[in-house]
Amino acid sequence: MQVSVLGATGYTGIELVGLLRDHPRVELALLASESFSGENIAEVYPHLKDIVEIECQSFDVDRISRASDIVFTALPHGVSQDIIPGLLERDLTVIDLSGDYRYRSAETYERWYQPHKSPELMEEAAYGLTELREEEIKNSRLIANPGCYPTASLLAVQPLLAEDLIEPEGIIIDAKSGVSGAGRGASRITHFCEVQENFKAYSVGCHRHSSEISEKLKIWNREEAEITFTPHLLPLKRGILATIYADSAVRSAGDELREKILKTYKDYYDHRPFMRIFADRNPQLKYVTGTNFCDLSANADDEGRIVIISAIDNLLKGAAGQAVQNMNAVCGWPEITGLDKTGSYI
Amino acid sequence: MQVSVLGATGYTGIELVGLLRDHPRVELALLASESFSGENIAEVYPHLKDIVEIECQSFDVDRISRASDIVFTALPHGVSQDIIPGLLERDLTVIDLSGDYRYRSAETYERWYQPHKSPELMEEAAYGLTELREEEIKNSRLIANPGCYPTASLLAVQPLLAEDLIEPEGIIIDAKSGVSGAGRGASRITHFCEVQENFKAYSVGCHRHSSEISEKLKIWNREEAEITFTPHLLPLKRGILATIYADSAVRSAGDELREKILKTYKDYYDHRPFMRIFADRNPQLKYVTGTNFCDLSANADDEGRIVIISAIDNLLKGAAGQAVQNMNAVCGWPEITGLDKTGSYI
Amino acid sequence: MQVSVLGATGYTGIELVGLLRDHPRVELALLASESFSGENIAEVYPHLKDIVEIECQSFDVDRISRASDIVFTALPHGVSQDIIPGLLERDLTVIDLSGDYRYRSAETYERWYQPHKSPELMEEAAYGLTELREEEIKNSRLIANPGCYPTASLLAVQPLLAEDLIEPEGIIIDAKSGVSGAGRGASRITHFCEVQENFKAYSVGCHRHSSEISEKLKIWNREEAEITFTPHLLPLKRGILATIYADSAVRSAGDELREKILKTYKDYYDHRPFMRIFADRNPQLKYVTGTNFCDLSANADDEGRIVIISAIDNLLKGAAGQAVQNMNAVCGWPEITGLDKTGSYI
Amino acid sequence: MQVSVLGATGYTGIELVGLLRDHPRVELALLASESFSGENIAEVYPHLKDIVEIECQSFDVDRISRASDIVFTALPHGVSQDIIPGLLERDLTVIDLSGDYRYRSAETYERWYQPHKSPELMEEAAYGLTELREEEIKNSRLIANPGCYPTASLLAVQPLLAEDLIEPEGIIIDAKSGVSGAGRGASRITHFCEVQENFKAYSVGCHRHSSEISEKLKIWNREEAEITFTPHLLPLKRGILATIYADSAVRSAGDELREKILKTYKDYYDHRPFMRIFADRNPQLKYVTGTNFCDLSANADDEGRIVIISAIDNLLKGAAGQAVQNMNAVCGWPEITGLDKTGSYI
Repeated sequence: MQVSVLGATGYTGIELVGLLRDHPRVELALLASESFSGENIAEVYPHLKDIVEIECQSFDVDRISRASDIVFTALPHGVSQDIIPGLLERDLTVIDLSGDYRYRSAETYERWYQPHKSPELMEEAAYGLTELREEEIKNSRLIANPGCYPTASLLAVQPLLAEDLIEPEGIIIDAKSGVSGAGRGASRITHFCEVQENFKAYSVGCHRHSSEISEKLKIWNREEAEITFTPHLLPLKRGILATIYADSAVRSAGDELREKILKTYKDYYDHRPFMRIFADRNPQLKYVTGTNFCDLSANADDEGRIVIISAIDNLLKGAAGQAVQNMNAVCGWPEITGLDKTGSYI
Repeated sequence: MQVSVLGATGYTGIELVGLLRDHPRVELALLASESFSGENIAEVYPHLKDIVEIECQSFDVDRISRASDIVFTALPHGVSQDIIPGLLERDLTVIDLSGDYRYRSAETYERWYQPHKSPELMEEAAYGLTELREEEIKNSRLIANPGCYPTASLLAVQPLLAEDLIEPEGIIIDAKSGVSGAGRGASRITHFCEVQENFKAYSVGCHRHSSEISEKLKIWNREEAEITFTPHLLPLKRGILATIYADSAVRSAGDELREKILKTYKDYYDHRPFMRIFADRNPQLKYVTGTNFCDLSANADDEGRIVIISAIDNLLKGAAGQAVQNMNAVCGWPEITGLDKTGSYI
Repeated sequence: MQVSVLGATGYTGIELVGLLRDHPRVELALLASESFSGENIAEVYPHLKDIVEIECQSFDVDRISRASDIVFTALPHGVSQDIIPGLLERDLTVIDLSGDYRYRSAETYERWYQPHKSPELMEEAAYGLTELREEEIKNSRLIANPGCYPTASLLAVQPLLAEDLIEPEGIIIDAKSGVSGAGRGASRITHFCEVQENFKAYSVGCHRHSSEISEKLKIWNREEAEITFTPHLLPLKRGILATIYADSAVRSAGDELREKILKTYKDYYDHRPFMRIFADRNPQLKYVTGTNFCDLSANADDEGRIVIISAIDNLLKGAAGQAVQNMNAVCGWPEITGLDKTGSYI
Repeated sequence: MQVSVLGATGYTGIELVGLLRDHPRVELALLASESFSGENIAEVYPHLKDIVEIECQSFDVDRISRASDIVFTALPHGVSQDIIPGLLERDLTVIDLSGDYRYRSAETYERWYQPHKSPELMEEAAYGLTELREEEIKNSRLIANPGCYPTASLLAVQPLLAEDLIEPEGIIIDAKSGVSGAGRGASRITHFCEVQENFKAYSVGCHRHSSEISEKLKIWNREEAEITFTPHLLPLKRGILATIYADSAVRSAGDELREKILKTYKDYYDHRPFMRIFADRNPQLKYVTGTNFCDLSANADDEGRIVIISAIDNLLKGAAGQAVQNMNAVCGWPEITGLDKTGSYI
């Protein structure tokens, strides 16, 4: 299977390049990059020297479609929609890592992003949260890979809402992300001296991913959930850890409630290779970094206040890893193909 | 004024030594350290070479009392109570940075710490949260410096509870601290390779400081507040940032509610030199590191969900800085004496 | 092939466990750990949950020999020599990651380490610097995996000395290592607050690895080289970068000299999959982290002063990765087996 | 005394603002910034809220000269020379932190920087390495503050060369700097994800500061010294540590040589408050961060190879701190005025 990556030189793109190079079922056909077209990818990212030595192309849809069976678009929001319709017309399967096709509602998208040029495709796109939408994904030629925060949040919250274990009001997602989530672009915000030994909340009450989480919960549960979402910037490179607070909607509390939640997670996820439910400790970023895992734990106090911890690697399960997982689903390959490497503790 | 530091070689102790050395009204009389007695403090902490060259003493209460007017005890919990009664008998003023005299209730202390040897002094001790307890502090000979998390939390929550702006139920304090909060002792938890590029929650639902926060809120407001407190460990050296969630107890929401909260903060803190209320942005750790400030901001959504950000330097406002602020209060000196240095952005 | 790891819970040990779990030709037979015997490795290192769930054993040589074909000993210096003779007697192949069998001279070992209990085996052991000693390694049942600093240093220096390109006097190795090189033991030196935002030289003029480098250069070139070796501690987890200074021993200088050095490196290493020679830029730690590469570059000024940069991941090429590379050599498998994964840039 | 800072919003500028605000003998008269003119400095750097609330001005030389007695120019190379002649014409004392007036030779400057517009002033300017050029500085109206690397290097090397303790050939300066040395501008090089867990050499054999070091050594010793200078980028915010290698030019070696070097340093620096000579350990960055110290140590082996460690805070002794030290010299104030605060270990 020939695969191409458009936007190969961003942080998500280059992570994809590494995963696909190591994937036993695919071959890297073409890498495209507007800013580095004509340059060897190993010049742009020298860690790839002797490993992936491919010249980056510009965005020529015909050339891409001749070379590829599957295309990953790791492009800025707004750019994906310029290119994807042409790729679909040429019968390619597209896995898009931008926000462009994540929403069902064009109106919501446009409120948080910008005008949309192909809203008709938004309804067709599968939302690529593999564990919860696999059937949809398998039958789709356009997969919208979820945002990183929504991945960590929805995998934790959706089973509990679906099983009426938590109240749909007053859900608080206090999320903390590493700097790679901000992308590779040079900006004062990502300057080492701004981030090191610093910590901050940002976009309080107004982060785009909040709308993505809300839309999905509403569609899936046919009921509005009230989410307070606060992202924070951690002085580290990769990983998202979300501390999620919710109120019990059942009569139990304390350990009994905790067991119910863990059982629900196990019912939903026990056969899923990338979901790990911790019963005896809380996940740490360290456990998931460099892997495609989403680790979950649950805590509950005697008043029925629930504290869930959800941890992922934002560049893998939150982006490139889940994209490969979706490719595996589309192609009917074992879910772990190309993603089954042990993370490193240190 | 002659001041001594017992436990001078811990992280809080050595921070105190620096502050007191630079303080224009006091002289460092004696440094005591069980582990390094007989050694020059500048051998233990070489950044003090040519600056503070004092030999550490063992804990000889008579010698300490002869040398000192004021004693800071930066000792482990449980050790403070062994020494402080003897210091008070010798008419010294004591500012204690351990947890030993922070509680009114010996029962609560003993549930979270250990048996208490001088519970009678617990009632006498002033709780050293300078901005809220100044009168008490001024008239006391034993000041219990607050815990670092309680400092950041209580300064943010108490004015809002006292003015009935927030509901006493469902208050969530999602707090993140730097590693220096764990002290200087070597342990696997503080190993660089465990912390760097990691992030985790710890003591979920069972951290001691939760009981300190709850006791103070109950005493001050004559009403139980229901607090969910989750501490996290940041991969950085110093600072605490708490993201605090609460529900509005008044009829307003959104910007109107936000203004009410800011006004309350200003009413409480406008004349206090170490409280800064941010109206147009949220505090970051960077703004307070190296200073005695507590920075606060408020956000509110249209459903009346409130998000407060509170940031302090855990070693200064959360420990050594507030201890000096309390000394200033006791001595009747201007509050900023010895604490008025500009922080560094980088 | 059944492989066991003794000392599985140290940083080098756990890195080995991950590599061997992912290796297509071997099976993890037994993990031994004195401190954690009886515990599931995934309890000690939770990132292994659902991946490697094996109970750690104590050091029972008979049991180990029944279970294993090859044994990796990732034990403290001095402990390896207690166990390895028994393993060899039972016909196992041993790859030792301690310093115990790296030297030819027991006298030198004892000067830098401690008395040696099986000096006769020191002569038999192969020095496992794969690229330079492969024949020796292939025919040995005891392989002494090199120290991390010697790996980075010898791969850079030996070809230049052997080809008489540099003077044997006045070679300076200014080496910088991440904290994982100090191991997992809790100590003040590795406390996060000691390391973060700090940098220091240590063991100036007296680091053990200096003697390892010198012995090897002397044996291989039948001539003493005069090395000044200064290790430094970097505030990061993994990686060694050595900046090596030497004087030209040939008549050329500047670019001509540089080309000669690069050509020598290419002659020695062009067919070696884990050696990369950079002609147009200098290696960075980032390029090798998470991989088994040793990256080299050369610079030369008009006076014939040479600056070589050598970079490795201390836990992989400097320890566990090279150990697996040596296993591959011993077993006659392709050199890259189990080590051929793309590193991650971020 | 009224002082102004031009280029107040760069990293060096803002460090100066903090120092001058805390300085007991001066008043901040005017802050100028091209990029932020019209904005309150506390909006640009919120850590200054309630501390320094001054509106940034544009570069109006008349206005600046009316407001100020002394002007600090913390401007990019090339921009300083546009403004400084006008300031001198208006009889101001100028302390320049750019490279524009550091050289005696316009030719050298132009080779490494750009064409110079006021070469006649280059001869007049005092080179602001306070400890070694104090007389010159006291009598000058234009002080060229040294580069950060030259400060750490020259303070270590010059006494040894002047006293003929080391050979002028084969001096190697292996220097490591924190990221703040690269300034505040957003670039890929300073992106957190590029720096964190990375380490690299840069500008090998071609860094500008090499020429600054060489020129000064040549002028001061009337003899060319041959310097190999290799700068490296550390994953930390502030500090420079240089490991300097040189050959003994005297008959002693080992401890005897070491004592000679230490004695020379003491002879030169014993009365200087910001020079600390460590006889029993090597300096670490941690000892100098946040202070104006330059810490030095010496090591020597039996072959007469010398290893000197020199550590400074690049933003203080390497920039803003030394600039204030120079102001104190010019004004005849005690050298430590405004710089006498204890650093923090953590």
